[in-house]
Amino acid sequence: VSSELSAELLNRFAAIVGVRNTLGSNDDLTHYTHENRGYVVGDTKLVLKPKTCEEVSLILKLANSTGTTIVPQGGHTGHMGGGVPLKELNSIVVSTERMNKVLDVDLIGNTLTVEAGVILENIQNLAAENDRLFPLALGAQGSCMIGGNISTNAGGTGVLAYGNTRDLVMGLEVVLPNGEIWDGLNRLRKNNTGYDLKNLFVGAEGTLGIITAAVIKLFPAPAGREVAWAGFSSVKTALAFFQSAKAKADNQLTAFELVPRIGIDYLLKHFPKFPDPLENNHTWYGLIEITSGRSIEDARHLTEEIFEAGLEAAIVEDAALASNIAQQQLFWQMREELPNSQRPEGASISHDISVPLGKVPELIERGEALVVAVVPGARMVAFGHLGDGNIHFNFSKPVGMDDADYMAFREQVNAVVFDLVLELGGSVSAEHGIGLFKRDVLERVKSPTEMTMMHQIKQMFDPNGIMNPGKVLNRLPDQS
Amino acid sequence: VSSELSAELLNRFAAIVGVRNTLGSNDDLTHYTHENRGYVVGDTKLVLKPKTCEEVSLILKLANSTGTTIVPQGGHTGHMGGGVPLKELNSIVVSTERMNKVLDVDLIGNTLTVEAGVILENIQNLAAENDRLFPLALGAQGSCMIGGNISTNAGGTGVLAYGNTRDLVMGLEVVLPNGEIWDGLNRLRKNNTGYDLKNLFVGAEGTLGIITAAVIKLFPAPAGREVAWAGFSSVKTALAFFQSAKAKADNQLTAFELVPRIGIDYLLKHFPKFPDPLENNHTWYGLIEITSGRSIEDARHLTEEIFEAGLEAAIVEDAALASNIAQQQLFWQMREELPNSQRPEGASISHDISVPLGKVPELIERGEALVVAVVPGARMVAFGHLGDGNIHFNFSKPVGMDDADYMAFREQVNAVVFDLVLELGGSVSAEHGIGLFKRDVLERVKSPTEMTMMHQIKQMFDPNGIMNPGKVLNRLPDQS
Repeated sequence: VSSELSAELLNRFAAIVGVRNTLGSNDDLTHYTHENRGYVVGDTKLVLKPKTCEEVSLILKLANSTGTTIVPQGGHTGHMGGGVPLKELNSIVVSTERMNKVLDVDLIGNTLTVEAGVILENIQNLAAENDRLFPLALGAQGSCMIGGNISTNAGGTGVLAYGNTRDLVMGLEVVLPNGEIWDGLNRLRKNNTGYDLKNLFVGAEGTLGIITAAVIKLFPAPAGREVAWAGFSSVKTALAFFQSAKAKADNQLTAFELVPRIGIDYLLKHFPKFPDPLENNHTWYGLIEITSGRSIEDARHLTEEIFEAGLEAAIVEDAALASNIAQQQLFWQMREELPNSQRPEGASISHDISVPLGKVPELIERGEALVVAVVPGARMVAFGHLGDGNIHFNFSKPVGMDDADYMAFREQVNAVVFDLVLELGGSVSAEHGIGLFKRDVLERVKSPTEMTMMHQIKQMFDPNGIMNPGKVLNRLPDQS
Repeated sequence: VSSELSAELLNRFAAIVGVRNTLGSNDDLTHYTHENRGYVVGDTKLVLKPKTCEEVSLILKLANSTGTTIVPQGGHTGHMGGGVPLKELNSIVVSTERMNKVLDVDLIGNTLTVEAGVILENIQNLAAENDRLFPLALGAQGSCMIGGNISTNAGGTGVLAYGNTRDLVMGLEVVLPNGEIWDGLNRLRKNNTGYDLKNLFVGAEGTLGIITAAVIKLFPAPAGREVAWAGFSSVKTALAFFQSAKAKADNQLTAFELVPRIGIDYLLKHFPKFPDPLENNHTWYGLIEITSGRSIEDARHLTEEIFEAGLEAAIVEDAALASNIAQQQLFWQMREELPNSQRPEGASISHDISVPLGKVPELIERGEALVVAVVPGARMVAFGHLGDGNIHFNFSKPVGMDDADYMAFREQVNAVVFDLVLELGGSVSAEHGIGLFKRDVLERVKSPTEMTMMHQIKQMFDPNGIMNPGKVLNRLPDQS
């Protein structure tokens, strides 16, 4: 693998897409080189913006034959540094941002075929215009791109009823590291012909090839939707209510997000427009969404049925149903602004973890005690996708502590949390992936057998190690 | 790879599981050597029945070091010959039938952890006893085993609402061809840590290792269920009704099976207990199931709402709701006995195919014309999972024709059907897999790029070619 990129080689790459579709040293490359929260700053001499799968193929052929490392990017909104071109590697960034065509809309088969660079929100809107739902929804939806969503197997708030991104993908087109194009744009719900290749690329974070297009699933748009806040005395009762709601509503229960009282306090303090959701204070809150394909009335009836049962069983302390669509949106904004409301409270040590559902109460109770033992006064802000067992297990610094002093405890806090997560049979990265930041953790949580399989797969697809080196697997090209 | 199995080597294999847990030349091995419909007859000198994952590991270690080929079996009910030990290969059969323990029942996380040899129906029953549903349902459920279901990514009637077997599997334990045990018994709904290995083994038909245990998903048991027959004038109107029902009911629409009038005629003729479902004859019928997690009444209301809309839109000609559970079961029996009602009509040339949903009417119309042009008088019996685009595209022989004469047209009929399926962007094996019978078709329908990836994966996991040779990929050990 070459560690230098000659001007001549850069020119050959640029010629593939045309110079005006490149960015170089004279341009502001911040968006491409910086992790979006500034946690790590990379470097690149060249950003390529191909328009077609064939251009991507030519780029990877040239890269593979010259040992040039490639970092693929969509919206570059990931939280794990997976899209950052590492300084020491002289990587070229390939951005799919110009590959933004919708190739097919099939309203009978309920599929969309889209290029990798289509922005998630545009897909959501296109689905809505056609009376359909594309359920993937997450904070970055206005700028993240579907190719990146697929490459990271993005999670978000729609997972409970509709699954992870993996479950929303029916087929893929991928350019392999050797430049070959795999046309796997399957539009079939059943197709048992040989090994499943699609799922290897979903969640591989650009280390096995570049996803250039995908067939994704659409769902019927709900005819009715209700959004409510509920108050709980404990995580245990919140979980009991989740189970009772799930039994009745199954996939019509489209969200069950857990929020602690401290999160509500942060929201009220930093976003004056938000109301306190319930009359009295509760230790825990749930933001709950229920939909119906039948009618507004049916969604309302189902919601009432579920909440009446919860109040009667005394597992719900109180509840407030949004009275109109504007209020529904306001309730959801509260959930979405929760990370932003944490920011003004100072440094946070965060974890994107999951455990088997029944272990969530234990995770939160024991986890808080463990972290507070490391940093007395650390403020637990545990929130997220209760129904998936996926908690954003964040701790704001103690009031008055210096940010840097607090972050010095990061490794130690991570260690106690990860130990607990593993003890409970959980995952140290539920939805954000591995990227750059968790590659060392990966080696700790996976068995040698599993690590060997992953390395063999990487070696098989990318023997020259050109694709997104140093991500997921802690293996740089010169170590190959 | 050795082509002979010495008595000494057979003894070493037998010693791993204990001689009384083996079958040999003095036993009736028909169940293990014969494809269940007698289409192909294999041979083996030894059937091993391990009790634990560790025994499977020792078997594969010995097999791998001695070049002995292994054919894994569950209930051996597959339709593609994937479980047959080929005569020329001197394979040992490893049956998981004694690995039949339920390892864990998690009613909060809604998962079961089961060994590979648990019979599907036992899993369904265990779920029901716990007020849960395990939705995988297929004809062989009384004898097929979950490990085989997973290895073949079985389909069946539950796919519409709950997905293929792949979608029901959360984690796997697999013994790799080198004898290493991969503990991938993940119980998490979200876990983004590295490459997805699970999906490589699901549907690999035992060519990459032996699945020894799995974590599978449970769902809330429906509180109410309705089953109805509907009559349609065409596949097109059946499809329009499906779409309208799906929009309202989404996953509460748990089955939408298409049946042609000729299928009803066969059923009435050969199973006198069955009623003609509707007063008048219709060209096409739908067996439709709708469930509710809320109540019997809610399932009834939703069903009425859907059928009223269909009758009003004149896409449904007539409908009959089962009036009690016994009648619901009777309606379902009609669907299940359809293949058996075809048998007394003589030889059938069958295809398990799928196309994008919107192409189903074209598939059936053009497909019938093409086949009848090859064999005038061939009787189309096209039935199956309309909502998945998966049609069992069967043709009974013309009345009065000799079975053998008809089957002589098999290749020619397959050819015109497969050509049409490929033209429509479909799959030549929607749910039954590739096994032995379709391995040559596979090479025809997959691109060289995809075939290469599959061969590389096989090579990576099983360099000595010991696992289920000659299945899926047409590569025998001596060709490696």
